[in-house]
Amino acid sequence: MAPAFVIHGDSARASGRFASVYSEVQSSRIDHALPLPSVLKNPFKIVDGTRSSAAGNPDEIAKLFPKLFGQPSAKLVPNDVDTLNSDQKLKIGVVLSGGQAPGGHNVISGIFDYLQDRAKGSILYGFKGGPAGIMKCKYVELNADYIYPYRNQGGFDMICSGRDKIETPEQFKQAEETAKKLDLDGLLVIGGDDSNTNACLLAEDFWVKGLKTRVMGCPKTIDGDLKSKEVPTSFGFDTACKIYSEMIGNVMIDARSTGKYYHFVRLMGRAASHITLECALQTHPNITIIGEEVAAKQLTLKNVTDYIVDIICKRSDLGYNYGVILVPEGLIDFIPEVQYLIAELNEILAHDVVDEDGLWKKKLTNQSLQLFEFLPPAIQEQLMLERDPHGNVQVAKIETEKMLIQMVETELEKRKQIGQYNCIFKGQSHFFGYEGRCGLPTNFDATYCYALGYGAGALLHSGKTGLISSVGNLGAPVAEWTVGGTALTSLMDVERRHGKFKPVIKKAMVELEGGPFKKFESLKNEWAINNRYISPGPIQFTGPGSDAISHTLRLELGAHA
Amino acid sequence: MAPAFVIHGDSARASGRFASVYSEVQSSRIDHALPLPSVLKNPFKIVDGTRSSAAGNPDEIAKLFPKLFGQPSAKLVPNDVDTLNSDQKLKIGVVLSGGQAPGGHNVISGIFDYLQDRAKGSILYGFKGGPAGIMKCKYVELNADYIYPYRNQGGFDMICSGRDKIETPEQFKQAEETAKKLDLDGLLVIGGDDSNTNACLLAEDFWVKGLKTRVMGCPKTIDGDLKSKEVPTSFGFDTACKIYSEMIGNVMIDARSTGKYYHFVRLMGRAASHITLECALQTHPNITIIGEEVAAKQLTLKNVTDYIVDIICKRSDLGYNYGVILVPEGLIDFIPEVQYLIAELNEILAHDVVDEDGLWKKKLTNQSLQLFEFLPPAIQEQLMLERDPHGNVQVAKIETEKMLIQMVETELEKRKQIGQYNCIFKGQSHFFGYEGRCGLPTNFDATYCYALGYGAGALLHSGKTGLISSVGNLGAPVAEWTVGGTALTSLMDVERRHGKFKPVIKKAMVELEGGPFKKFESLKNEWAINNRYISPGPIQFTGPGSDAISHTLRLELGAHA
Repeated sequence: MAPAFVIHGDSARASGRFASVYSEVQSSRIDHALPLPSVLKNPFKIVDGTRSSAAGNPDEIAKLFPKLFGQPSAKLVPNDVDTLNSDQKLKIGVVLSGGQAPGGHNVISGIFDYLQDRAKGSILYGFKGGPAGIMKCKYVELNADYIYPYRNQGGFDMICSGRDKIETPEQFKQAEETAKKLDLDGLLVIGGDDSNTNACLLAEDFWVKGLKTRVMGCPKTIDGDLKSKEVPTSFGFDTACKIYSEMIGNVMIDARSTGKYYHFVRLMGRAASHITLECALQTHPNITIIGEEVAAKQLTLKNVTDYIVDIICKRSDLGYNYGVILVPEGLIDFIPEVQYLIAELNEILAHDVVDEDGLWKKKLTNQSLQLFEFLPPAIQEQLMLERDPHGNVQVAKIETEKMLIQMVETELEKRKQIGQYNCIFKGQSHFFGYEGRCGLPTNFDATYCYALGYGAGALLHSGKTGLISSVGNLGAPVAEWTVGGTALTSLMDVERRHGKFKPVIKKAMVELEGGPFKKFESLKNEWAINNRYISPGPIQFTGPGSDAISHTLRLELGAHA
Repeated sequence: MAPAFVIHGDSARASGRFASVYSEVQSSRIDHALPLPSVLKNPFKIVDGTRSSAAGNPDEIAKLFPKLFGQPSAKLVPNDVDTLNSDQKLKIGVVLSGGQAPGGHNVISGIFDYLQDRAKGSILYGFKGGPAGIMKCKYVELNADYIYPYRNQGGFDMICSGRDKIETPEQFKQAEETAKKLDLDGLLVIGGDDSNTNACLLAEDFWVKGLKTRVMGCPKTIDGDLKSKEVPTSFGFDTACKIYSEMIGNVMIDARSTGKYYHFVRLMGRAASHITLECALQTHPNITIIGEEVAAKQLTLKNVTDYIVDIICKRSDLGYNYGVILVPEGLIDFIPEVQYLIAELNEILAHDVVDEDGLWKKKLTNQSLQLFEFLPPAIQEQLMLERDPHGNVQVAKIETEKMLIQMVETELEKRKQIGQYNCIFKGQSHFFGYEGRCGLPTNFDATYCYALGYGAGALLHSGKTGLISSVGNLGAPVAEWTVGGTALTSLMDVERRHGKFKPVIKKAMVELEGGPFKKFESLKNEWAINNRYISPGPIQFTGPGSDAISHTLRLELGAHA
C-alpha cells in the first residue's frame, strides 16, 4: 500500500518539468489512451457549409474583416481516400492565451499527433508565455519527448500562458515578422473570447498582408461563456465545475452533519454565471444566485439579501438551521444600483476630499446613498480604499460571499427583533477559484481537447483560416463526435469603444430560457426548503461516473432529465 | 455519457436521507466490498498483554481510575474455535462525538456487521447528536436498511454528532439512566482526545456503579493528533489530507503556469500541525511552517516572516516570482510572544478604556508593544474588536494566511527599498477546512474504520471496557492487520485545572525527531528553491494510487523513502 512515484527522466527533463516527480494518479494519466472521433481515424475530406454572417452588426463585421467575413463552416466527413497531402511538411505554431483551463496540454498533444500521423516531418512550435511569445518570437520546438509528460495533465506549464494582446500596428508587425521568420504555415490560438477575437484579427491581417500563415482559434475558458450553436462548450468548464462541485458536496454533507452553519460559496465566473449554475445542478444547494437572473429582474442588493433571509427563516421554521448558498464571483457586477454607486464613487474620489464627517456623501444620489448606507462597514471601507492604478474602485476585490454574510446577519437581527426568526445564524465563507483551473482534466476534457487539437491540425493542413475548432455531437459516444471549424467572424458583434467599432466575440451568458436555467428554476424551491444535497465526490478517471458530461451541456443538447 | 442517479428508496427513506439522490460515485461506493483483517474472518480468541501504566503521572491516573488503571491491552488472535458466545444477544449503543471525520459511518457499519455476524439478534442503538443524545436518551435503533445508504459515505449525518461533554455528576447520572433504560451491554464512543477521555470516565463510572455497560472508544480526528504506539493513526486524517493535497496540487500547477502569485494556504489543525506536514509530504510546497518547530525554536512572528521573505527573495533571484506556502491554522498559538500579547490585551481590555490616541498601549510590555506595532492594521483591529462571550480576544478568528501575506508584503517593500528585491509580490490566500471533513472516505479510511468498528464489537462482546479500538500493522496488506484494544488510561496524563487534577489524553504533536518531520526537514531547502511540486490529483477509488496510505503513517511505521 506504499505510494509509488514515477520519475520521468529524460523526457521530463527535456521539457522543463526536469527531475520533477509525479503522483501515482498523474503518472497513470500520462499513458491514458484517448479515443478519437471515427472521422479522424479514417480518411476524410473537408466540406464547406453555407455562407456565414455575424452574431450582430454583420455590415460592420464585414467591413472589419473584408477577407474573412462570410466564410462557411467546415466539416470533416469520411471519404474513400485522404484529400490532404500527407507529404506536406508543415510549420505550425501554437499559443496558450489567458487564464488556465484543464485540457490545454491535450489540445497541443492533439495537433502534435495530427502532424505526426498525417503530415510526418512537420514542425510544431510552442510560443512561450502567451501572445507575448509570438510578438517577441520566444518559442520552443515541441517534440514527442517534450510533450509526453504533459499528456492529460492539468495546467498550462508546458509553454505557459499570458494575457498580452496583439493590438497595435507595431504588435501586428512583430507577429508578422515571427510568422515569416519561422516560415509558419499555421498558428493555433488557444484562448477565450478575447483571444479568439485576436486570432481572427491576426488571420485577417496575415491574409491581407499576403502571408501564408493560417490562423485558427480553440475555445478555452473554465467560465463556459465562449460557446455557440456549433461550439457546444469551451474546454476546462467540465473539470473546473466538477472540482468545485466535489468541494461543495463535501461542505453540504458537513452542513447537514453539523447542523449549525450556512456556507456561502463564491465561485469563479465574473462575467457569466455558468459555473454557479452547473455546480447547482450537480449538487442541489439550498440557494443559488444567478447573476443573469438578478440583472434581468433588476434586483437590488436588498432584494437578494431578502431572498436569502426569507429562505433561512423558512428553513428555521422547519428545524433546519444550516444550508449551502452558491454565489457567482461577478454577482455585484450584475446589480445596476451597485454600478451606479461605483460610478458616483469613482467621480467623487477623483475630484473631492473625503471628509471624516461624511459630508462628501451628500454628493451621492439618493439611491446610491441608501445603498452605501445599507452596505456593511467593512465593504464601505473597501470601496473607499482599494483602488486600481487608474484610481477606480476595485469591485473585483470585494469578497461577495462575506458581504452577503454580513448583510444577511444584519437583516436576520432585524427579523429576530420582530419575532420572525429565533435561531443563531453562523455564516462560513468559501471561495473556489484557483483550485479548479489546473486540475487533472476529466476524461471528457481530456478527450474533447485532444479532438479539438487534432481537428485544428486537419483544418490548418487544409489551408483554412479564421475558424475556431469545433467538435460537436458531444452527447453521443466519442466515435460519433463531429469535427470541424466555425467562422470566427460568425461569432462576432461590434462594440463602440472610444468612438470606434471594435469586433468582439460576445460572451455567452446564462440563457434564462435555456435548458439548464429552466431545470434549475423548476427545482430551486424544492432544494431551498428540503435538503436534496448531492455530493459528486472526487473526479474519477475510471469506473462509475468517470465519463459523465456536464449537466449544462447535456441540457443544452436537449436532455430533459 | 449521461450521468445517472440512483434513488435509494425504502432504505434511504427509512434513514432520514429520504428521497435523497446520490451521485454516481456515491452510489458506486455503497456496495464497495470492504476487506476484513483475516483474524476477524475466522475463529479468534482474545489475549491480554502485560499490565499498562499511563502516559504521565501514573499515580494520579491510578487514583482517578481505580477500576481501570493498569488494564492490559487486548489482542485478537486466531483460534481453532470461537471463544465468544454467538447466542448472546447484546444491546450496544454507539455515538459520534465532536467534529466530522471521513469514515465514521463505517465504524458504525463495522460494529453493526459484527453483531449480525457473531451475535445475531443483537440490537444497535445510535445516539443522536453526540453525547447529548446519551444524556437525553435520544436514539434510533439501527438496522440494515437504516445503515445501508451510509456505507462508505462521508459525513456524520446518519446519527449526527455534537460537542457536549458528560461532565457533571448530574450528567453522569443521566448517562447511567440511559444505560439502564436501554439495558446496554456496551457503548462505543467515536471521538477525539476529549471524547475518548470522556469515554474512559464513563467506563470507570459505570463499573464503579455496578452497571453492566462496557464502554469503548474509537480514535477519530482529521487532525491526526490522537495516536500512540498501539493506535497508529486516527481515522479521517487520510481522507482529509488527500482532499487538501488535491487542492494544493492544483494550486501549485496554477502557480507554475501563471508565474506571478504566491499562494498562502492555511490548513485545518489548531493544536498540532500533522495535516500541514502530511500535505507538505504529499505536494512539496516551497515553504511549510510547522507549528511545533516554531514553538521548539521559540520563533517570533518576525522570524517566521523573515524566513518566508528570504526564500521569496532567493526565488526571485532565480527567476521564480511564484510559490506555494502552507501554514497550519494554529500557527500563532505556537508563538510565545503572541500568547503574551493576547494575555496582556485581555487584561487591558477588561479593565481599561482604549483611547483613540493609543495611550492605552503604554500598558503593554515592551515586547508586546513591538509585536503589536509589527502587526498589520487589520489584524490589530481584529485583536481589539473580535471578542468571545468572556471578553477574550479571539485568536481563532484571525486569518493567519492573510496576516502573513500582509507582513510579507511590508517586509518585501523594505527589501525593495534597499535593493534586495525587485519583483512584484502578489499573495493569494486559501483556507482548506470544512472541505475535507466530510468527503467520501478513501479506501484506507473506509477499510480502517470498518475494522475499528468490527473489532470494537468483538471486544465489547468479550466484556472488555475502558479500551480504545486499535487496528495495527497498517503498512501490510489488510489481511495481516492486527486487531485489538488499548487501555484508555495508558494514553492519559493529568492536567491541573482549577486546583484539581483532570485526566487528559495528551494530544500527539508533530515529533521533531520523528520520521515524517525528519523527511520533511531533509527536503525543505530543496523544495524551497527548486520546484518539486507534486499534484496528487483527486482521490481515486479504483486503479493506481487508490490504496496508498498517508506519508505520515508510512514514515512512522519505519519507511525511509
